[in-house]
Amino acid sequence: MSTIQGLDSGVQEKITQFKQLDLKISHLNSMLALAGWDQKVMAPKKGRSIFANAIGTLSTEVFKLTVSKEMGELLATLTSEEVYSQLDDVTKASVRERNNFYEQSKSIPSELYNEYMVLTSNANDAWEEARESNNFDVYLPYLERIVEIKKQFAEYYGYEGHPYNALLNEYEPGLTVEKLDPLFAELRKSSIDLLQRINASTSKPNGEIFDKRYDVEKQKEFNKFLLPRIGFDMNAGRLDETVHPFAQSVNTGDVRLTTRYLEDNVRSAIFGTIHEAGHGIYEQNVNPELEGTAICSGASFGIHESQSRFLENMVGRSEEFWKCFYQELQERFPEQLGGTSLDEFYRAINIVEPSFIRVEADELTYNLHIMLRYEIEKGLIGGEIEVKDLPKVWNTKMEEYLGIVPPTDTLGVLQDVHWSFGGLGYFPSYSLGNLYAAQILNTITKEIPTFYQHIEKGEFDVIQSWLKEKIHTHGVLYTPDELIVKVTGESLNAQYLVNYLEDKYSKVYKL
Amino acid sequence: MSTIQGLDSGVQEKITQFKQLDLKISHLNSMLALAGWDQKVMAPKKGRSIFANAIGTLSTEVFKLTVSKEMGELLATLTSEEVYSQLDDVTKASVRERNNFYEQSKSIPSELYNEYMVLTSNANDAWEEARESNNFDVYLPYLERIVEIKKQFAEYYGYEGHPYNALLNEYEPGLTVEKLDPLFAELRKSSIDLLQRINASTSKPNGEIFDKRYDVEKQKEFNKFLLPRIGFDMNAGRLDETVHPFAQSVNTGDVRLTTRYLEDNVRSAIFGTIHEAGHGIYEQNVNPELEGTAICSGASFGIHESQSRFLENMVGRSEEFWKCFYQELQERFPEQLGGTSLDEFYRAINIVEPSFIRVEADELTYNLHIMLRYEIEKGLIGGEIEVKDLPKVWNTKMEEYLGIVPPTDTLGVLQDVHWSFGGLGYFPSYSLGNLYAAQILNTITKEIPTFYQHIEKGEFDVIQSWLKEKIHTHGVLYTPDELIVKVTGESLNAQYLVNYLEDKYSKVYKL
Repeated sequence: MSTIQGLDSGVQEKITQFKQLDLKISHLNSMLALAGWDQKVMAPKKGRSIFANAIGTLSTEVFKLTVSKEMGELLATLTSEEVYSQLDDVTKASVRERNNFYEQSKSIPSELYNEYMVLTSNANDAWEEARESNNFDVYLPYLERIVEIKKQFAEYYGYEGHPYNALLNEYEPGLTVEKLDPLFAELRKSSIDLLQRINASTSKPNGEIFDKRYDVEKQKEFNKFLLPRIGFDMNAGRLDETVHPFAQSVNTGDVRLTTRYLEDNVRSAIFGTIHEAGHGIYEQNVNPELEGTAICSGASFGIHESQSRFLENMVGRSEEFWKCFYQELQERFPEQLGGTSLDEFYRAINIVEPSFIRVEADELTYNLHIMLRYEIEKGLIGGEIEVKDLPKVWNTKMEEYLGIVPPTDTLGVLQDVHWSFGGLGYFPSYSLGNLYAAQILNTITKEIPTFYQHIEKGEFDVIQSWLKEKIHTHGVLYTPDELIVKVTGESLNAQYLVNYLEDKYSKVYKL
Repeated sequence: MSTIQGLDSGVQEKITQFKQLDLKISHLNSMLALAGWDQKVMAPKKGRSIFANAIGTLSTEVFKLTVSKEMGELLATLTSEEVYSQLDDVTKASVRERNNFYEQSKSIPSELYNEYMVLTSNANDAWEEARESNNFDVYLPYLERIVEIKKQFAEYYGYEGHPYNALLNEYEPGLTVEKLDPLFAELRKSSIDLLQRINASTSKPNGEIFDKRYDVEKQKEFNKFLLPRIGFDMNAGRLDETVHPFAQSVNTGDVRLTTRYLEDNVRSAIFGTIHEAGHGIYEQNVNPELEGTAICSGASFGIHESQSRFLENMVGRSEEFWKCFYQELQERFPEQLGGTSLDEFYRAINIVEPSFIRVEADELTYNLHIMLRYEIEKGLIGGEIEVKDLPKVWNTKMEEYLGIVPPTDTLGVLQDVHWSFGGLGYFPSYSLGNLYAAQILNTITKEIPTFYQHIEKGEFDVIQSWLKEKIHTHGVLYTPDELIVKVTGESLNAQYLVNYLEDKYSKVYKL
């Protein structure tokens, strides 16, 4: 191990100790990643509740290590100005990440943390019951306490400006209400305006092909054909099936995706798989030299989502993508698609229609679903909204943003799992992903003017190499803002997504 | 938690601490069990070597806990006569198991242990290379050092009588050369005698049906049909595919089996699946109240193997079993089996024929393969056999026991992986399994006189309930000898297997 000039051997020893502890935590976390995947994908029914205890034990061990006295002492030395400035970039970033977590976690009284862990575990059941019975009151007391605790967490974490900033920071380091409000305001205004023009369009795409049934085995065949072609390395990953699709990295050589095949919804598997592939390719392409450190992952929730949205929407819903693959899909479904032209198909996969459920929303209205949740979370943490009023608030905002009102709370305020596990601050990541993706698209099409031609020819390696070099390989080396500036030359700017949506839907809806 | 009368609160506290430590180790071990399964069954190629480091880290943590100062102090209190005698049976057994491991492990100098871990890791590669190139010399230096270290381990562990006893004890607590020699002598004599009469039989079964090809998808269908019917709970387990079939318990609600489907060997999957199901049903039926303790598993390697052999051979190769299932098999393979009667099929699956490879051996000659390995291991540890002479010794004994000599070392001394991981003392478990199984068969057919009628009717629940109550539910509560005495009324007695084999093959070969 190389030593740094000018640091005494005691400090060198602490750097070594930090790296060993970082490695141990990383190894145990990859074990937890595998265990979490297994519980969702492989574990038989009767074993899951028993194994949950084992996961609990290991999680607790990892948590103890991350906030241990040893960690605290090592971080105290390594974050001191003299030492920190002399660390290599990887160690610097790893120290930064471990220190953020340490500072946050140690500020929470252990009694409150334990209450929170038990509460969120039980809240999931309450949420499921409430959703199934369309009865918000079942969920209400849990959600009230969760919001109360998250408010306290915000105080313990500390913040400048709005208290919600403390929670946003957990998912998108450095993000604040003060930065996000103008971004979302611009996006909301233009989205609502565009939506109105789309609704008034006299040249709407025809979505009848998606009312047809598609054989599941043929769908699997197509997805397995597609996945390696768009850049996912099947020797460093898997594709399995779950009700709720997700991507889980165990390490850079082992990234696991899931998708779901619905006979009555052929779009679900195709775009779900492309979406998760975007997450997965990111994880596969993180520099393997970062293995065993805190920074061997994606830069943030928002940046991660940008990679899945970029592949799903900017690439996967482009006309050129289907110039490349439509024939393959048609050949598998001649009855369903034989009479539909490429242009008709392209327009059909880009239909915009306000709907109740976020995860089923199109590219344009999706962001309105997110902004609604953002406004609500901000209000809950800021104290302007009370949990008991949520069903009413939800429906009012749905009317305002999307022009529709859900007939039940199950189709409204109860649809998402996030709040039940305390994930307040999480939702904005989804729209950040769209914003980052459009900004990255603007840069990549400038730097690779033949971008869409490569897609049309199936030359995804050109695009993936660019993303790898600019984004993926760095892991968590940079903060999200540092990274987007490094890649695109400026901080996040809503104009790119606004322009992208305007251009795309002007074409699809002949506005 | 209930307290024990007469023990002071300091001791009560230590009992509680022991249980917590036992629970933690058990949880982490179930995580390792899952990880080991995943590496063999699910993990993509590029992730395995990276993940091996994570497994190494967690294994080391678990090992440290099992030999920690804390564990030592707790065991010192709990094994003291006054305290131990007042513990409940489960805690007693758990203390016994942890203490055995602690006493053994702490006696090994850490430098020697580390050398052994690295050596056995590298020896596996050397063994694979040697086997592939039929070159024993590649393996020789590794195996010499492994044997040398195992001899030292035996001295550190301590033993009475033969030094090999120290190694046998790792797999079958309480087993000694002095007990095993007469058992194996009796079995060897009768097996060789029976084999000679079988070879001279003029009414040999016809095995031509097994030269045919069997569609793999149909095989899968049959195995999936069979597995739940013979007592394996598919809600508490899985069946996957690997080159080398195995069973792995994660917990009592999650037991995972693998099998392999060979187009040119239909017996492989059927009997492999039934065999692993025997292991799996055992683990599924351990009392769930033992979860989180050191005794939530099978009583020993030999007892475990008795359950797989019992189901595979005593049940699965019986005429009544195929009275129940042959029609199902025939329906799936009408071309291959349509012209073969049940009696012909039954005799064909019980063909005896000396062969080179242990894992492919029939029920009778299998034990001769094991006794050969037992004699060699005893000689290696006792100092009468040198590693460099193994190819010659192997072939001489093959001639003596089975009347055939392998043409290559790959088909001889290099065929098994066990020595490369230091598993000297392991092989006898396989024949112990056969011995225990025959003795258990003798008891169960007395206690359930309608035993074979239940098999014929597919009423496996009657048989599995008996095995559960008598054996499975107890986990490691009893030592193997205590258990077999409890179940059958006497210690292990070779006569039952001798009689079973004589009866069975007299019928199959019309002797």
